[in-house]
Formats: sequence, structure tokens, C-alpha cells
Amino acid sequence: MNFDVRQLALHVLTDRVLSLGRDMVTVATAALDGGATVIQLRDKTASTRLLIEEAVALRALTRERGAMLIVNDRIDVALAVDADGAHVGQDDMPAALARQLLGPERILGVSAGNLEEAAEAIIAGADYLGVGPIYATASKADAGQPQGTALLRELAAQHTLPLIAIGGIHAENAAEVIQAGATGIAVISAVVSAPDITAATHDLRQILFAGWRGKNML
Amino acid sequence: MNFDVRQLALHVLTDRVLSLGRDMVTVATAALDGGATVIQLRDKTASTRLLIEEAVALRALTRERGAMLIVNDRIDVALAVDADGAHVGQDDMPAALARQLLGPERILGVSAGNLEEAAEAIIAGADYLGVGPIYATASKADAGQPQGTALLRELAAQHTLPLIAIGGIHAENAAEVIQAGATGIAVISAVVSAPDITAATHDLRQILFAGWRGKNML
Repeated sequence: MNFDVRQLALHVLTDRVLSLGRDMVTVATAALDGGATVIQLRDKTASTRLLIEEAVALRALTRERGAMLIVNDRIDVALAVDADGAHVGQDDMPAALARQLLGPERILGVSAGNLEEAAEAIIAGADYLGVGPIYATASKADAGQPQGTALLRELAAQHTLPLIAIGGIHAENAAEVIQAGATGIAVISAVVSAPDITAATHDLRQILFAGWRGKNML
Repeated sequence: MNFDVRQLALHVLTDRVLSLGRDMVTVATAALDGGATVIQLRDKTASTRLLIEEAVALRALTRERGAMLIVNDRIDVALAVDADGAHVGQDDMPAALARQLLGPERILGVSAGNLEEAAEAIIAGADYLGVGPIYATASKADAGQPQGTALLRELAAQHTLPLIAIGGIHAENAAEVIQAGATGIAVISAVVSAPDITAATHDLRQILFAGWRGKNML
């Protein structure tokens, strides 16, 4: 599919538990105000009915703001609300099946925690890789061992696909993941748990832009 | 879509917890040996990856036996494994969206616990209604209040759609739900928790057939 890679710069993943009681649309709106380019709907405990309601609300919001909506895991929900794409992890639908259901036009992101998973994801038709966890994270209970920036460096040397770094990324380490080869970053708690979501998102975006300028991407 | 309504006679829903430690394929094989006509894959706690593996195994098995595979809730999984259809409850994807994603050819079953839900499901494009819970059931924690056979009688008087009775149905009460207007029945524990799954399924099938003969359906 066709998209400007800069649209993948800053993914904010939803999390009902970590959002300090603020509802999903409030959190997403504040993140978009701060410059998030992608809202990824991730809700592993909701019923499908609730997921659809959340996705419909986020679809309207992201469309209004010219941002992307990507749905985690649930290809059915992504298709039902006409999301821009879906993101699958290693416990989700195999990427090749996800690609088949999504069709060629929607964005498919695939999590990769090592070189082998990355190679498989690319063969299966991924448009970008979610690479991580880079650092230790408490936001995702089943995240694997932190990889540091080494995996990003190796992948950036081998592949041209956009690499979105995830796992324990915040304002203090975002510059080094861009430097290591990440195109963009995906965050949960660094944004959704921030007292000022818009300011936290804006800070991350400024760091990304600075990193891109350093790589002549802007 | 086109199907012989008799193919909807006897739905056996999978349940990993209630199957007394027997694996899903073993349980489904025994149920098919006893004459189940539909295996409905229902697994609300599995990861999507595991669901796909279960669905792939059940797809091969049901195809080999000429039985139907229907996937509960997950339209993505139904499409991914080319199931015959999907079944959605009131907490799942709205039926009209499910119909859109499934297309016109696959079977769409929709749960209805009252006349209003039934009417909505029919408008949304349901091929059959899952009507219940008829009797008290421990198999489904979020099942509503038992309806008895009254709802079946009312629906059978108003609609021609196949009605599949569900909720607490076993060999002792199966005849009366057919008599009340059900086309078929859906069971969980009456089959998957039975010491002899094949015999339990066979008994239910015989009761169904006797009921159909009483209604000149055979």
C-alpha cells in the first residue's frame, strides 16, 4: 500500500488500565493534539461489541484529524470500521493470513522480537515491523526480554521496511532508538499515563523530528 | 445462502474447560461420530493464534465428515479458515456488520434472547437464530434468564427462520424444544462433558429425528 512513512512516526497505543481513569477518546484526542500520527486500538479484554464501539469512535476522530487508525490483533474489527490497517503480534493471527484478509491496500504491521520473526513478517507481507521490546516495559505483561537497540541496528542494516520501536520508550531514550535505525516509535504508558498527554506526545514528536533531521529524513 | 435446514440440526459447541481434559479435536471427532451436524468453535480465552490453530484443525475434520464449522464471535477467524459461517451473540459484533464481512454466502447465526433481538437479527441478515437460554445453564456464565419454551413458540409462530434452541438442553428436554418450534438444538455440556460423547450425541440426534418426524420434517 502507499503511505508516507512519516505517517508512521508516532504510534500511541490505547490502554484502558494505564490511562488513569481517562476514557479512550479523551486520551486519543489529547495524543492527537500533541502530534500522534497513529492511534493503535489495543484492548485485549473488551468484548467484540465494545471493541467495535471503541473503534468506531477512534475511526471518526482519527479521520477528522488526518491520523491513522490501526487495530491491534483484530482483523475483523479493522475491516468492520474501515481502519487504515491492523497490527498483529506473534500470538495473533499469522501475518500471511492477516494480509490475505486485509487485502493489499490496508497497512499491516507485525511485531518482531528477533531477526527470524522479522524475516518471516516481511515475507508474509508486513508494511512495517514493530520491533521490541527495546527496553523493559510494565505496559505489556507478555512482552519478551528487552533487546536494547542492537536488534534495531541489525534490522536497519538488512531491511528497508519502516521499523517502529516499541517497549519502554519515553522522552529520555527516544532519540537513541531513532539514531539506531527506527523510523518511528510506539508508546503506551509514556503517553497514556502522562498527567499532560498532549505535552508528553508533543515532546516525543519533537525528539522524533530532531532525529529525522539528523538522518536527513525531513 | 443455500443450505438444507437439517444440516443445522445438532450444534455442538466446543469448551476447553468443560471437556474433562479431552482435547478439542478428540471431543469434536466423537461428537461427529455420534451425528453432530455442526461444530461451533467457541473459545473466549484463547489467543487469536491458538484460535486459528483450533479452527484449522476443526475445519479439516468437519470437511472430511461433511459437517459444518461455525465460528463463535470471531469473523476474522471464520474467514481465515474458510468456515461455513459464524455465530454472533449480543456482546459480539453487531449482526449487520458481521453479515457485511462474511458476505452473502456464509451462514450467519445470531443469538436472540427475546422477540426484539430476534426481529433485529432477522433484519440484519441472520440465517438462523440461536434462541435461549431455554433452561438454566452453567456452561455460559453470561447467559441471561431462562426463557422456557415460550419464546420458541412465539418466534415459531412469527418467523420461518430456523430456530436453534440453546441453554441447558439435554436428552430429557430436547423433545419438548423441538415440539415447541425449534428446528435444532445447540449443546455444550450435554455432549462435551458426557463420559461417552458419541453415545450422548447419538441419543440427542435420535430425539431430534423423532421430533422432526412428528412435525413431518423428515
